[in-house]
Amino acid sequence: MLTPDDFIRALDWMGTVVFALSGVLIARRLQMDGFGLLVLASVTAIGGGTIRDLVLGIRPVFWVTQSHYLVLIVVTCALAIPLARLLSRAKVAWLLLHADALGLATFTAIGANKALSVGAPAIVAVGMGVLTGVGGGVIRDVLAREVPMVLCREVYATACIAGGIVLTAVHAWTGQSLPAMLGGMLTTWLIRLAALRWHWHLPTFGGLDPDESR
Amino acid sequence: MLTPDDFIRALDWMGTVVFALSGVLIARRLQMDGFGLLVLASVTAIGGGTIRDLVLGIRPVFWVTQSHYLVLIVVTCALAIPLARLLSRAKVAWLLLHADALGLATFTAIGANKALSVGAPAIVAVGMGVLTGVGGGVIRDVLAREVPMVLCREVYATACIAGGIVLTAVHAWTGQSLPAMLGGMLTTWLIRLAALRWHWHLPTFGGLDPDESR
Amino acid sequence: MLTPDDFIRALDWMGTVVFALSGVLIARRLQMDGFGLLVLASVTAIGGGTIRDLVLGIRPVFWVTQSHYLVLIVVTCALAIPLARLLSRAKVAWLLLHADALGLATFTAIGANKALSVGAPAIVAVGMGVLTGVGGGVIRDVLAREVPMVLCREVYATACIAGGIVLTAVHAWTGQSLPAMLGGMLTTWLIRLAALRWHWHLPTFGGLDPDESR
Repeated sequence: MLTPDDFIRALDWMGTVVFALSGVLIARRLQMDGFGLLVLASVTAIGGGTIRDLVLGIRPVFWVTQSHYLVLIVVTCALAIPLARLLSRAKVAWLLLHADALGLATFTAIGANKALSVGAPAIVAVGMGVLTGVGGGVIRDVLAREVPMVLCREVYATACIAGGIVLTAVHAWTGQSLPAMLGGMLTTWLIRLAALRWHWHLPTFGGLDPDESR
Repeated sequence: MLTPDDFIRALDWMGTVVFALSGVLIARRLQMDGFGLLVLASVTAIGGGTIRDLVLGIRPVFWVTQSHYLVLIVVTCALAIPLARLLSRAKVAWLLLHADALGLATFTAIGANKALSVGAPAIVAVGMGVLTGVGGGVIRDVLAREVPMVLCREVYATACIAGGIVLTAVHAWTGQSLPAMLGGMLTTWLIRLAALRWHWHLPTFGGLDPDESR
Repeated sequence: MLTPDDFIRALDWMGTVVFALSGVLIARRLQMDGFGLLVLASVTAIGGGTIRDLVLGIRPVFWVTQSHYLVLIVVTCALAIPLARLLSRAKVAWLLLHADALGLATFTAIGANKALSVGAPAIVAVGMGVLTGVGGGVIRDVLAREVPMVLCREVYATACIAGGIVLTAVHAWTGQSLPAMLGGMLTTWLIRLAALRWHWHLPTFGGLDPDESR
């Protein structure tokens, strides 16, 4: 039978694969070679969790002892190019966006939960959730020389913040990890799905003065 | 009564606010949303100290246990936009530059002092002072996709190096932290003020050959 | 007499100098000031090893206790500009490329060996070899606002991967560090030399569809 822990682990693996794929896509667009592809896939998939573990003082970072993360990334890179040909571009994009929403929800919950488990205060736990969820994508965009997408666009990190707050609140209330994680994940995932469906955006602050029309 | 420790702590908080504000300004210019603003403010304010703590092996990094740093940054972001309207742009720029000089002096002294307190050699202490002082700004500029300002411009990092050297020397001589910190801070601050007033620049090395006109 | 350990240490120092020089060259091209030069030289020379030590949980990172690395970098920066005038540009470029091949081989072997010595699994050891070899150059390119060269170009990281695999295999087989390191270094170095001589390139994946002509 699938226990809740198995369920979260399965989502974690799926998130790793999906995040790696988003690295592969950008590497292709920039015409990187096989190694660049591997690097972008890796930093996207495990970059956020790496910074989280470093900052929390957990050592070594998770993927040094749990080497199946690296194996998963290498296999994803090897299969990504041939498999991408079986599906149309539109279908690949749709699948990735929706799998990404699930991965984001899982990564955020894992990050916030890990921070709470080492005794970090609530605001730090929310920050660690966000860092785990979006940190890898930010490093990927820096390496690809783009202004990180997540800083400019969409209700993406906001979904992480909301999920982190719910998780921290449920954890403070019940004292248990599992309901907190499931609550946090559900929150992030539903906000992200709604943002995808109705094209939600946050206000930007560059356009404060109405006469600025850049 | 205000003890020297209180005084340094007050300057540290002011530095955190000022550095966060410089992140807010760049986020506005790039039309980032509210989350991007929060990220740029955070990396500018605590990025340098984070790398310092990681490299020195202090764990977890300072803002995980002292969560008032994150609170300070969030409050700064929330108040920055409305407050900015109360002052003219020129006044904001003047205030920021001069508060930044104080913040830089404080951060540099804190960084160098922390390195000495864990037994690092003098050259490493100077490096940690510089890293704490300018590291956050460098990460901010990388995320904003600019060549880090501090690498190309002005007697900024040089003021940190001088302050770090004075601090290390006074510390070696007296064996005490407080006079060393005050000496280092004063050095960084005065050099920075002088550089602002007389528009000092360091020579660059690209124009060495007069026949190179790139 | 020169023991193998002395030999590896000498190559490590040479690699540090050469990597620092590659930072100096890019800083010159970008017309950075003296401080920018120092920063680019430092991140190129010790950036990869710093991330490696952080990820492996070795603290503090190597150059905090072994401060001769920083001294070596400062001296290299001080001497680089005057010495560069004694040689023609073509000779400097040739020397740098070939010294870089030796430095890369050494850094990769040191990184993979350090990972194995703290009990990391094989795939992590290979990754740490690559990270130590190319990580510094990637940070340098990010600061200089270029898409990291190594992600797009040449059989560079591939030489590290091959060297890391050979090192890990020999280590698993003999249980000894020294033959493993020498085997790994020789592999990286020879592949890199061959790539330089015959202009090897890896296939890129951007050009998969022949009708895409971006």
